[in-house]
Amino acid sequence: MLDANELRERALKIKAFAYDIDGVFTDGSLLALPDGDLLRVFNAKDGMGARVAYLNGFKQAIITGGVSKSVIHRCNTLGIPTEDIYMGSRNKLPDFFKFCEKYGFQPEEVCYVGDDLPDISILKSCGFAACPADAIEEVKEVCHYVSPNNGGRGCIRNIVEFVLKNQGKFIFDSEDYDGIKGGYGLAKDHPWK
Amino acid sequence: MLDANELRERALKIKAFAYDIDGVFTDGSLLALPDGDLLRVFNAKDGMGARVAYLNGFKQAIITGGVSKSVIHRCNTLGIPTEDIYMGSRNKLPDFFKFCEKYGFQPEEVCYVGDDLPDISILKSCGFAACPADAIEEVKEVCHYVSPNNGGRGCIRNIVEFVLKNQGKFIFDSEDYDGIKGGYGLAKDHPWK
Amino acid sequence: MLDANELRERALKIKAFAYDIDGVFTDGSLLALPDGDLLRVFNAKDGMGARVAYLNGFKQAIITGGVSKSVIHRCNTLGIPTEDIYMGSRNKLPDFFKFCEKYGFQPEEVCYVGDDLPDISILKSCGFAACPADAIEEVKEVCHYVSPNNGGRGCIRNIVEFVLKNQGKFIFDSEDYDGIKGGYGLAKDHPWK
Amino acid sequence: MLDANELRERALKIKAFAYDIDGVFTDGSLLALPDGDLLRVFNAKDGMGARVAYLNGFKQAIITGGVSKSVIHRCNTLGIPTEDIYMGSRNKLPDFFKFCEKYGFQPEEVCYVGDDLPDISILKSCGFAACPADAIEEVKEVCHYVSPNNGGRGCIRNIVEFVLKNQGKFIFDSEDYDGIKGGYGLAKDHPWK
Repeated sequence: MLDANELRERALKIKAFAYDIDGVFTDGSLLALPDGDLLRVFNAKDGMGARVAYLNGFKQAIITGGVSKSVIHRCNTLGIPTEDIYMGSRNKLPDFFKFCEKYGFQPEEVCYVGDDLPDISILKSCGFAACPADAIEEVKEVCHYVSPNNGGRGCIRNIVEFVLKNQGKFIFDSEDYDGIKGGYGLAKDHPWK
Repeated sequence: MLDANELRERALKIKAFAYDIDGVFTDGSLLALPDGDLLRVFNAKDGMGARVAYLNGFKQAIITGGVSKSVIHRCNTLGIPTEDIYMGSRNKLPDFFKFCEKYGFQPEEVCYVGDDLPDISILKSCGFAACPADAIEEVKEVCHYVSPNNGGRGCIRNIVEFVLKNQGKFIFDSEDYDGIKGGYGLAKDHPWK
Repeated sequence: MLDANELRERALKIKAFAYDIDGVFTDGSLLALPDGDLLRVFNAKDGMGARVAYLNGFKQAIITGGVSKSVIHRCNTLGIPTEDIYMGSRNKLPDFFKFCEKYGFQPEEVCYVGDDLPDISILKSCGFAACPADAIEEVKEVCHYVSPNNGGRGCIRNIVEFVLKNQGKFIFDSEDYDGIKGGYGLAKDHPWK
Repeated sequence: MLDANELRERALKIKAFAYDIDGVFTDGSLLALPDGDLLRVFNAKDGMGARVAYLNGFKQAIITGGVSKSVIHRCNTLGIPTEDIYMGSRNKLPDFFKFCEKYGFQPEEVCYVGDDLPDISILKSCGFAACPADAIEEVKEVCHYVSPNNGGRGCIRNIVEFVLKNQGKFIFDSEDYDGIKGGYGLAKDHPWK
């Protein structure tokens, strides 16, 4: 983990976020259904964090090894469009570079949050490498910032707040909260849930 | 948080409750289904608290940003009629005032329980502003009462008990518990669950 | 809570168990479905406790305010037949007496486990009144035995073990575990799960 | 629990793993559905542990008293083929021997992880007997290794890592992670989730 000055310097450059799902947006729990689908449990406060990032103009992507329609629906309501959700990503680094290139970001302008072995290659390449408090040791060792919150219990909220507050951009305006002035193409009548 | 005397004074004026859902009636968990619906996990002891409020004549409302049929069903069984469940509420304060006006309550006669950014406007306007122990800091700062219980783990029960006991009205009569003498139009054969 | 000698004396007389569901067989969580049904989360070790009671000849009943087909299925696999599952029980004491009369038990021969207001009347009437560690205070005050385990996290297992070990009957025989020699009419091919 | 040298000696001989499900691959929670099925909650980090074992050539089996299609699907994605999933196993020891014989393993070449009464017979017979931190006392007493992690919260990951690291085989190669070079017949397009 970096010291406060180095962290601040890195946070100031961030223009986008990319997240792993299991153990990051969730506590790693996977509810196994009889048809083979795996359901995840998301968290309301983490969702609010992602929405504030969205409403303040930050691009966001998902890069996950899992494959499930439920992830797409949930992330859409957080301001993450389907085209920026990389599912079934086994070797994750190429997908990270694809996201960077698509929007013209340098890797050092992107914050990535991961917690397990497949995340390490991106964490070593991105500008702000972050993880939940219960990430594996090998991940913590390569991260710039270790959140005090566990996966699925506020780590996304904490990391988004940390980066945006350093930029003076953690702004929540309830008048604006229906997403009309937001950026990424969510319709006014989008079923935020 | 106010001192005991100020809290008691505010509790004595309360005639109704309004609650946020996620992080208040639940621990903030959202089980994402493949069709986009989000399911919540409620708590039996919190439910009993809301029922005791109902059986003792208190009006109750829900004001939540979420939208899900499951919330309606659950809240109906706690004595909260569908017409007093405000879902998809983005800018929450107008919905709070609508509830007050409908039943002729002054805002200082209503206790509101919330835990995150969209709840702050109501918490600043109501008579008894309460939150769970794991609410965000910005919410705790504007609350009169911070429950020792977390969201979905007894905070509703604790807050209802606190208010009703101050009024000498936390009365549970198992003979009366089928809701016959209760108020808000639940039929005798309503499927309490 | 009674002292060790008094507890032992009461445990020796027990011939049957009756249990509340929410907060006892579960941690009180209620997953609300869109159709109004509420799903519960049971626990494998608690289930094993109930099975050992069943295999050693103890009758068991459920007395719950909830109504859900899922409860019936689960309890059937633990050796509790449908006819001894009292659901939608609002005023619980008459249902407790019905169970006692049906099998010719005196109330002091039955152990009841409950955690909230509707359980108090039975707890005051039965021979061995027990509750989980996270029961409400009013319940703990009237119980003979407070389990060190929370509801849904081993309290049933702990209470069954306590009573049966006092009687020298906590016997698990894996050869016998398919339930053939068991008592309450579970077929040999019953889908224990 | 054995000392470090004895544990290392036993770990070096291990060629395969066999696991109980409830309380081991899960925290023991069982979500009861209206049709009688019981759903389990698995954990992403435990899953990654089983996949690393699979990718490094270790055979794996499930021996569980439960019966549920969801278990089959989940375990298939972890490199455990359906033919090595023993469900509805009441008297577990014969199923353990069947697995050993099928692949020509001596019992001392297999690590078994269990947490409750039906697991004790296998734990006494296998080469590396392991359990989660929250196993029952009778299980801990017969185990060579007690994981610091609870069931469903990393105990599988921790035990697999312990054994494989002692053999110098805990190798994760993201290039290889799509399972092409893996062993047990998972197709290249298998829906890992």
